[in-house]
Amino acid sequence: MLPPQIIARKRDGHVLTAAEIEAFVRGATDGSWADYQLSALLMAICLRGLNAEETTLYTTAMTRSGVVADLTGIPGIKVDKHSTGGVGDKVSLVLAPWVAACGVPVPMISGRGLGHSGGTLDKLEAIAGFRTGLSLAEYRDQVARIGCALIGQTPELAPADRRLYALRDVTATVESIPLICGSILSKKLAAGIDALVLDVKFGRGAFMPDLTAARELAATLVRVGRAAGKQVRALLTRMEAPLGRAVGNALEVAESIAALRGAGPADLMEVTRALGVEMLLLGRVAADPAAANVRLDAALASGAAAAKFREIIAAQGGDARVVDEPGRLPVARRIEPVLAPRAGFITAVDARAVAYAALRLGAGRARAQDTVDPAVGVAGLGQVGEPIAAGQPLAWLHANDLAGLDEARALLSGAFTLGETRVPPPPLVAERIGE
Amino acid sequence: MLPPQIIARKRDGHVLTAAEIEAFVRGATDGSWADYQLSALLMAICLRGLNAEETTLYTTAMTRSGVVADLTGIPGIKVDKHSTGGVGDKVSLVLAPWVAACGVPVPMISGRGLGHSGGTLDKLEAIAGFRTGLSLAEYRDQVARIGCALIGQTPELAPADRRLYALRDVTATVESIPLICGSILSKKLAAGIDALVLDVKFGRGAFMPDLTAARELAATLVRVGRAAGKQVRALLTRMEAPLGRAVGNALEVAESIAALRGAGPADLMEVTRALGVEMLLLGRVAADPAAANVRLDAALASGAAAAKFREIIAAQGGDARVVDEPGRLPVARRIEPVLAPRAGFITAVDARAVAYAALRLGAGRARAQDTVDPAVGVAGLGQVGEPIAAGQPLAWLHANDLAGLDEARALLSGAFTLGETRVPPPPLVAERIGE
Repeated sequence: MLPPQIIARKRDGHVLTAAEIEAFVRGATDGSWADYQLSALLMAICLRGLNAEETTLYTTAMTRSGVVADLTGIPGIKVDKHSTGGVGDKVSLVLAPWVAACGVPVPMISGRGLGHSGGTLDKLEAIAGFRTGLSLAEYRDQVARIGCALIGQTPELAPADRRLYALRDVTATVESIPLICGSILSKKLAAGIDALVLDVKFGRGAFMPDLTAARELAATLVRVGRAAGKQVRALLTRMEAPLGRAVGNALEVAESIAALRGAGPADLMEVTRALGVEMLLLGRVAADPAAANVRLDAALASGAAAAKFREIIAAQGGDARVVDEPGRLPVARRIEPVLAPRAGFITAVDARAVAYAALRLGAGRARAQDTVDPAVGVAGLGQVGEPIAAGQPLAWLHANDLAGLDEARALLSGAFTLGETRVPPPPLVAERIGE
Repeated sequence: MLPPQIIARKRDGHVLTAAEIEAFVRGATDGSWADYQLSALLMAICLRGLNAEETTLYTTAMTRSGVVADLTGIPGIKVDKHSTGGVGDKVSLVLAPWVAACGVPVPMISGRGLGHSGGTLDKLEAIAGFRTGLSLAEYRDQVARIGCALIGQTPELAPADRRLYALRDVTATVESIPLICGSILSKKLAAGIDALVLDVKFGRGAFMPDLTAARELAATLVRVGRAAGKQVRALLTRMEAPLGRAVGNALEVAESIAALRGAGPADLMEVTRALGVEMLLLGRVAADPAAANVRLDAALASGAAAAKFREIIAAQGGDARVVDEPGRLPVARRIEPVLAPRAGFITAVDARAVAYAALRLGAGRARAQDTVDPAVGVAGLGQVGEPIAAGQPLAWLHANDLAGLDEARALLSGAFTLGETRVPPPPLVAERIGE
């Protein structure tokens, strides 16, 4: 069947067969479909959808478009975590060493930041020397040796997704639950995991602000992941305000180190702990949530979590001394406060506005080819529920290039809403999907 | 606004602004939009549609993407005809000289055949030496001098359509009324016409088999053409059986010459005359249909119509002697009948099956890059309502390459339905749109 015939079938609302879906994904991998044909079908899928079976077939075909890593030789149940992305979302940096320190192997494949949301790889690379581009062999060896590796997608893993993801970004075909599902799961499944915990965010700082859409995505991911034979659970977590007090690469590494040393902000710890409990249960190192929490507490208190992070950094070529001396992380030339215009309580912090302030300072990418400045961003962010006096800092800007400073200051200042009475911070974990 | 933002607006079902539509068409013309972005938006338009105003803006932008020919210096109301394409549709070859002979200037831009439907340019090129690739200046001069030119789209006319048309063909985005409307009208409007008659076909041999869809296309074309300041009328004509008794390039030229000499088959003359009446009325050389018919009859009877065809052929470098000696047209090496298996009346002839038989012999193109054989095709086709004796020819195959002959014979034989009682041929002009 020729590409236009397959495209026409989806355009006309038909259910694609396994052979048609495989032809499409193979066409994306071997170049036999032109970009314009891929994008036409992607748009037809955006508007016509894929049913449950098509989504599973699509995800499986994407997974098999390249190498599927074999981690079966490594003892233990290998569990990864994926987040749909938020502002100040440094959960992976805390969670991976923490859970690995509890005895669950964590082979973690992460991404880079784009638009308002940051990326784990960019954060890790704020640590001098840290290599996120390990080969598949290095990745497997490191998971076997120290129980965790934090790497980027390699060329061998789900190459169809690489091409389709790049196309979707420039053809307005990102917002489709089956396409998102295929993209997320194919990379994870190709990485050789046994189980997966998903942090699906909703709220104004999330990729999918709407709870209903986020719930649908979570349910699709859980269903398709299970159809592929993996244990999958999802937490729906609120992303209205930034997670923690820092947004920016080195600033978030510093906050993650504090968290691993037991001094993390409550909101970051709430989300990280909830995901950690799921990973310990999936990894069968704890029988129930209470036991999982005991084990997580012990790993923090003993210093094992921080030690595991040191070990990971060293294994990947980074300067592990940052765990004990965060001052070794890159520092911005200019650090200045944004002051509260009046006294009151912080009732809201607009995650997206904070993200754009950090982006304007150079902490993220407006386009995929942009470079990031590891030192810059926003820190010391006031949080919902906190009182503030007039003239006190609501947050601090960390800048190198002064060009964007005024704009960033205005964005950051506008991100805060002050009220007369205290509003308690809302619980962040809203729902759990998957028994 | 960036291409993905415009694509996203249509994906989400919004009405595009004039600036957005112009950016899209400009992007198709100057290359600033990538093919994959154009095709994503084309698919979004296929599925979300364009409303009346958007369709007009799109058509206007396409028209202005290149040169708009200026024929205002030529006296008279310049009228062209466009057909959505059928099988055996040689109407243009008869109509253009006939109407021009009645004093209406006919500047006609035609296309090539693709798939089951033939193209006027391919038919004309069956005449030795005939040049369809005139420059715009030659085209204008010829219309001024002899009242008619029969040419293909030039590079200057609606270049945006050229790129989009090629993309639509390979991305399953052909079937969209607003996109079809923009493609048809932009080329016609850029050619400098004052008025246009449309032959919108429906039935199994038509591009749009469904009458309702054909009616919608006709109404859209009339509305948008008028919004662009042109007089436009449309006839909805039935295309179940082939038009006339010949399908194939030289064979259709011979049948057209017969028609211009007053010996055309009734069905071909019915459609051609109905369109001719509209053109004479639009061209203001007849006050009413009766007067138009008198004038058309006179042009046939006097030989003026045939003489005008001679004049056009000569002006465009072709061998005008074919009008008097059709034996000069290319002839196939092998001509053989398809015989009736039993006696009866022809109750149906499947236009599409006949077209595929001719295509298999090399008369048309399966892909745009294929070459056509001018000599081959099908002739002497029996028509609906005619009686046939067992063992008598239902039609004749004209072949050069014997490789496809068996398949063509089977297709052609299967195209005929025989019945016990006579079914009269249905009227071909079903509706008229535009007062």
